[in-house]
Amino acid sequence: MNINLLETFKNPEPGRNYIITIKIPEFTSLCPKTGQPDFGTITIEYVPDKCCIELKSLKLYMQNYRQKGIFYESLVNQLLNDLSFIAKPRAMKVTGDFNARGGITTKVEAKTGKLF
Amino acid sequence: MNINLLETFKNPEPGRNYIITIKIPEFTSLCPKTGQPDFGTITIEYVPDKCCIELKSLKLYMQNYRQKGIFYESLVNQLLNDLSFIAKPRAMKVTGDFNARGGITTKVEAKTGKLF
Amino acid sequence: MNINLLETFKNPEPGRNYIITIKIPEFTSLCPKTGQPDFGTITIEYVPDKCCIELKSLKLYMQNYRQKGIFYESLVNQLLNDLSFIAKPRAMKVTGDFNARGGITTKVEAKTGKLF
Amino acid sequence: MNINLLETFKNPEPGRNYIITIKIPEFTSLCPKTGQPDFGTITIEYVPDKCCIELKSLKLYMQNYRQKGIFYESLVNQLLNDLSFIAKPRAMKVTGDFNARGGITTKVEAKTGKLF
Amino acid sequence: MNINLLETFKNPEPGRNYIITIKIPEFTSLCPKTGQPDFGTITIEYVPDKCCIELKSLKLYMQNYRQKGIFYESLVNQLLNDLSFIAKPRAMKVTGDFNARGGITTKVEAKTGKLF
Amino acid sequence: MNINLLETFKNPEPGRNYIITIKIPEFTSLCPKTGQPDFGTITIEYVPDKCCIELKSLKLYMQNYRQKGIFYESLVNQLLNDLSFIAKPRAMKVTGDFNARGGITTKVEAKTGKLF
Amino acid sequence: MNINLLETFKNPEPGRNYIITIKIPEFTSLCPKTGQPDFGTITIEYVPDKCCIELKSLKLYMQNYRQKGIFYESLVNQLLNDLSFIAKPRAMKVTGDFNARGGITTKVEAKTGKLF
Amino acid sequence: MNINLLETFKNPEPGRNYIITIKIPEFTSLCPKTGQPDFGTITIEYVPDKCCIELKSLKLYMQNYRQKGIFYESLVNQLLNDLSFIAKPRAMKVTGDFNARGGITTKVEAKTGKLF
Amino acid sequence: MNINLLETFKNPEPGRNYIITIKIPEFTSLCPKTGQPDFGTITIEYVPDKCCIELKSLKLYMQNYRQKGIFYESLVNQLLNDLSFIAKPRAMKVTGDFNARGGITTKVEAKTGKLF
Amino acid sequence: MNINLLETFKNPEPGRNYIITIKIPEFTSLCPKTGQPDFGTITIEYVPDKCCIELKSLKLYMQNYRQKGIFYESLVNQLLNDLSFIAKPRAMKVTGDFNARGGITTKVEAKTGKLF
Repeated sequence: MNINLLETFKNPEPGRNYIITIKIPEFTSLCPKTGQPDFGTITIEYVPDKCCIELKSLKLYMQNYRQKGIFYESLVNQLLNDLSFIAKPRAMKVTGDFNARGGITTKVEAKTGKLF
Repeated sequence: MNINLLETFKNPEPGRNYIITIKIPEFTSLCPKTGQPDFGTITIEYVPDKCCIELKSLKLYMQNYRQKGIFYESLVNQLLNDLSFIAKPRAMKVTGDFNARGGITTKVEAKTGKLF
Repeated sequence: MNINLLETFKNPEPGRNYIITIKIPEFTSLCPKTGQPDFGTITIEYVPDKCCIELKSLKLYMQNYRQKGIFYESLVNQLLNDLSFIAKPRAMKVTGDFNARGGITTKVEAKTGKLF
Repeated sequence: MNINLLETFKNPEPGRNYIITIKIPEFTSLCPKTGQPDFGTITIEYVPDKCCIELKSLKLYMQNYRQKGIFYESLVNQLLNDLSFIAKPRAMKVTGDFNARGGITTKVEAKTGKLF
Repeated sequence: MNINLLETFKNPEPGRNYIITIKIPEFTSLCPKTGQPDFGTITIEYVPDKCCIELKSLKLYMQNYRQKGIFYESLVNQLLNDLSFIAKPRAMKVTGDFNARGGITTKVEAKTGKLF
Repeated sequence: MNINLLETFKNPEPGRNYIITIKIPEFTSLCPKTGQPDFGTITIEYVPDKCCIELKSLKLYMQNYRQKGIFYESLVNQLLNDLSFIAKPRAMKVTGDFNARGGITTKVEAKTGKLF
Repeated sequence: MNINLLETFKNPEPGRNYIITIKIPEFTSLCPKTGQPDFGTITIEYVPDKCCIELKSLKLYMQNYRQKGIFYESLVNQLLNDLSFIAKPRAMKVTGDFNARGGITTKVEAKTGKLF
Repeated sequence: MNINLLETFKNPEPGRNYIITIKIPEFTSLCPKTGQPDFGTITIEYVPDKCCIELKSLKLYMQNYRQKGIFYESLVNQLLNDLSFIAKPRAMKVTGDFNARGGITTKVEAKTGKLF
Repeated sequence: MNINLLETFKNPEPGRNYIITIKIPEFTSLCPKTGQPDFGTITIEYVPDKCCIELKSLKLYMQNYRQKGIFYESLVNQLLNDLSFIAKPRAMKVTGDFNARGGITTKVEAKTGKLF
Repeated sequence: MNINLLETFKNPEPGRNYIITIKIPEFTSLCPKTGQPDFGTITIEYVPDKCCIELKSLKLYMQNYRQKGIFYESLVNQLLNDLSFIAKPRAMKVTGDFNARGGITTKVEAKTGKLF
């Protein structure tokens, strides 16, 4: 993924620990084995440190997965890695809830630091 | 924002810790990047100390954001700062639940002190 | 759209009027003005005549809209036209329920013949 | 399908028009194209004439589809044909509600006579 | 069934058409093929003529099916026949909703006269 | 029942057909066979003519059934008769929804005139 | 009631039949027999003719019932009469849903003309 | 309002009568008497003739009411007039559901032609 | 069961403890005593170590139970054993929720390691 | 009760502590005082040791209560005693939720060992 798409802005209140929750119910990527589209909801929760993730740039970054083949497990960890690398949050959790494929639904949850 | 719009009145029972919850489901401001209107629900929970926040003045203060461009993260922290500065509560939590923009919903939660 | 992707099979019971309802909740295309992704649910109801629409080919045909810019109104009418051209049903109705964009949701309904 | 599995018993009240509704939420067959299992709910509604469908034999008859490849449209019409052939009801409706495959759900409804 | 268990009392208002609805969610009988217990809900709706069905006697009459093997279709029609014979209502409808057996649920509805 | 308990007052608008709906969810009487308490909800709907039923007197009248043994069917018809006699409405419907007794629930509905 | 409190403004579109629905869930008056407060929801539906009812004046008019003893039936009819007198609508319906008193809830509905 | 903001595009299927439903849950304007903000949901249903309403231009047109003082009744009729003038639909219905003000909620519905 | 059907892929983030939850609502096997089909939902939760379970291979592995007679208790433990053997997770829990048979529903839960 | 009806089979995984939950919503017995039928839901949770309870034999054992008069308290304790005697589980809990009799519902819970 092109991590350069992600922009941040200065955390307006770095002296305070507070939580930002972002929900993206229209996520879509491709299955790396079949090339068929996958659909799901991505939830990002984080405590910002020096900067916050800018939402429009996040939307564009997420859209880059639209034509990319990637496993659910790789996707969730890559999101956690990319967003952590860019925003260096004090803590972050990424959850992917994926729609049924072949009658099977999958959820992947990964985090760094202690959110609550 | 014009913090002078906010008024308080004497806490009728300062000898007791009690909780006040205010919900404002008709909040609207502008996106600082696109100028487009944002909509959301602001929830304020606090334990008053010497004074309580007067509700009509709070309504007028909130309406001042109607034509202002501001990030969600700045807004929630500014609300917490302004209301804390005026009312000096023993504890306060401000939550902003913002409507979907580009298919993405966002929630920001910030607090001072220990509410519960 | 590539109408050649659509396959049909012989209606197993042409002597009987019966109804087939197909729901596609994972439809996505692009906005022709902004290039941004659109999401929605497409519902197809029809009474087959000589042939039925094969579902796997329908899935592949629908996936062709993934990278195509098209207005909702054009999409729903094109689906009705393409599917009618291929399957020549006795009656058909196509409904598109599209997710909010800029805080606005849209539904488009079009039909040919009398379904019920 | 082996129609001989189906048994009937004498309608205990042939002088009266009454309705029997049978729901089979655990139906499973195979996709004729991919060999993958399909799942769905079959509903049978009928007004008996000379005989009623015996439920245990119906269960065994339905289980015969477990390893059979068949299109949804063929299945629903074949059920209507077989059950009508055996029980010769005054009216019958068969509905198949099939689970999502490739993100697409399908319903097929067919009937003979006038049920209500 | 021992129809003698059923008692009636004089309709307190024979000059008026009115509706009585009785629901019995704890009905149980035996399967005539396997001897296994069946469970279901019986609903009786009727317009009384000269007499009403006494509820305690109805309960005792219904309990007589507890150890009796009977098909659902026979049961519902027998209830309609017995209750009609005893109470001679202007109209009556009996519905049996039976719990799943072998993954199959069944409903049987029969009536005499015009209830509504 | 002591019909003298019921009071009416002058219909404030006799030139107009309008509907009054009264719901009494706390009704209780005794079973005439066992002496056990019965519980239920009584609903009264009527179009007043010259007078309306006064609600406090209705409450007192209803409380008179507390120690009285009466069949559901008699109760609903007696209510319809007494209230009609006192208020002479253009139309009235009385419904009694009675709680389970011996696992059996009962509803009785009676009316005079045409309510809607 | 002081009908002079009610104000109207010119119907902006008298050439068109359209419907206005006003719901007032915070209505309160006094019971004329006991002096106890009554609470309820008043709903007003109307098709305007030459003028529309101004909402702030309606709120003040409704508040005038706060200290007034009045029967539900009189209230609903008086509202219909006063509002019809002031606004002369093409059709109007007033509904009062009153909270439980002594375990009894009451609804009164009155109308003039044909609303739909 | 600046009707010039509204854009249309060629109806892709003028030979067919079909229905477009647009829901705008984030509408806000000002009260013409108090200057206070009003909030509500606007629903537009129409059968297009020669052209369709472009959604992004509709969003911008609707945002023009953000700082405008206007009565609910005028707003709904003006929307119907402006959108009809621009798009000349075969039929159109506009509904405004407005949030509580002073404890009073209001709905206004207006239409031209026959939608269904 | 043929454990060879199961495939794994390299855990993309072995340095992190994260949870994968897989839900299979279309599981079916045979009763080892009667040969009749059983239906249920299997849920697998695990923390991967060196590798992740590939979902398409899991689907094919699960389909192998379609014609196999097995007790619920054996099934859940065998799934836990096979999946643990192949993927060697840091922790895993398998839950089987089985549909009613003879009016009896059964749930079996087994785990290794500490999931949360 | 005839404890000989109960069968067990070898615990397929005695080296692991895992939980089996069995729900029987169609339980019925007789009241020992009145001879009237009682209805309820029995839930059995246990950690097996050397053997598991075979479900078909459990069904037949439970059906033996159909014509037996027994107090709720005796029933739940006898189930716990009989099932513990036969299966010698590491821990077991039996819960009986009984339907209303005379307007009264009853729940009885008993256990041995530590389930969780």
